[in-house]
Amino acid sequence: MTAVLAPTAAAPVKTRERILLVSLALFNAQGEPNVTTNHIADEMEISPGNLYYHFRNKDQIIYELFERFEKRMDETLVLPGARRPDMEDMWLYLHLVFETIWEYRFLYRDLVDLLSRNKKLRTHFSRLVERKAEMARTICRALTQEGAMSASEQELNAVACNIALVTTFWLSFHAVKQRSGAIDTQSLAQGIYQVLSLVSGYLQADEREHLQVLARAYLS
Amino acid sequence: MTAVLAPTAAAPVKTRERILLVSLALFNAQGEPNVTTNHIADEMEISPGNLYYHFRNKDQIIYELFERFEKRMDETLVLPGARRPDMEDMWLYLHLVFETIWEYRFLYRDLVDLLSRNKKLRTHFSRLVERKAEMARTICRALTQEGAMSASEQELNAVACNIALVTTFWLSFHAVKQRSGAIDTQSLAQGIYQVLSLVSGYLQADEREHLQVLARAYLS
Repeated sequence: MTAVLAPTAAAPVKTRERILLVSLALFNAQGEPNVTTNHIADEMEISPGNLYYHFRNKDQIIYELFERFEKRMDETLVLPGARRPDMEDMWLYLHLVFETIWEYRFLYRDLVDLLSRNKKLRTHFSRLVERKAEMARTICRALTQEGAMSASEQELNAVACNIALVTTFWLSFHAVKQRSGAIDTQSLAQGIYQVLSLVSGYLQADEREHLQVLARAYLS
Repeated sequence: MTAVLAPTAAAPVKTRERILLVSLALFNAQGEPNVTTNHIADEMEISPGNLYYHFRNKDQIIYELFERFEKRMDETLVLPGARRPDMEDMWLYLHLVFETIWEYRFLYRDLVDLLSRNKKLRTHFSRLVERKAEMARTICRALTQEGAMSASEQELNAVACNIALVTTFWLSFHAVKQRSGAIDTQSLAQGIYQVLSLVSGYLQADEREHLQVLARAYLS
């Protein structure tokens, strides 16, 4: 009995997973507002009814994709154990943040409209942005205590807020600037550099020069 | 004859203008994707047919509103005559930019989707963002030449780019951060401060302190 039941029980899970993956790919490529559940079913060559068997509506698909994104971000926004975070941590942290954003970029493309339509998503996303800013503030405060950075508490807060803002909207900004509307992975490196520039001005002379040299290497 | 014709000839102009003003108010309040031409006609208590007599579709209304916005921005993004721009110019310039953005905030709320649907809008908006960055670069370069600011050409470019980004997405960021989703005029003052923080770190000590004192007065 078990041998017969197992594949049958496993099959719906596979379709369910495929729906999520295909939706993510379509949302990222065309923008979530331009993709309907019918498009998703068409792309998978399944009936709309089969899709609705797994998901009530598009919002449920979006929310489950968001949960995966949130889990990835939660794993990323973790400070290194006991030692104080430094500038290298900032690079690594930004790299992981931008990679995760890129993977779920449809969330960022139409962020305000998406959140206005879904209260649960809004609460979770807002919490995520706060954590991003808090993480940036913690790293910057540590750099200040070590004397690598010089900034008042008011300035630290402003820098942390700008870091959260630029990471959140870098891809959108890039899409707006490019007349073609295209965005690619190369633009992520530029985004990381733009975020580091938010800190650069507050660094001590040698730290600042070091950052600019690293940045040039990173961008070329 | 003239006396009889004049009001008749004037009437369509008035309706046309009212359609634009009512559309702007509805787009700003509810978000452009959530407002149809039927909503606009309902709100004005005119028939959809009457609305279509003046505008082919919603995109034409959006584009005419954008043209007004662009004209306002073009008037704003003008450097002061012969003398070199200074930090005071930056405050004034940002104030005017944020006021104009606030007035046409629906354009910024769903920017990426709006531009993806309209090539003409995309070209014009991209040009506007470039001009914004160029203006910021010019002011920062002047501050550097005067010795008030210290930044390499690479740093100046990064700062100018961040200024264009933060002004473009401040309202969206505010909407994402607020769990209620509400944005108000008070958030503009905070936005101006966030933009000035982008420059602050690169200023000489006394200029930087001056800016922070001004900022505290401005935000309280």
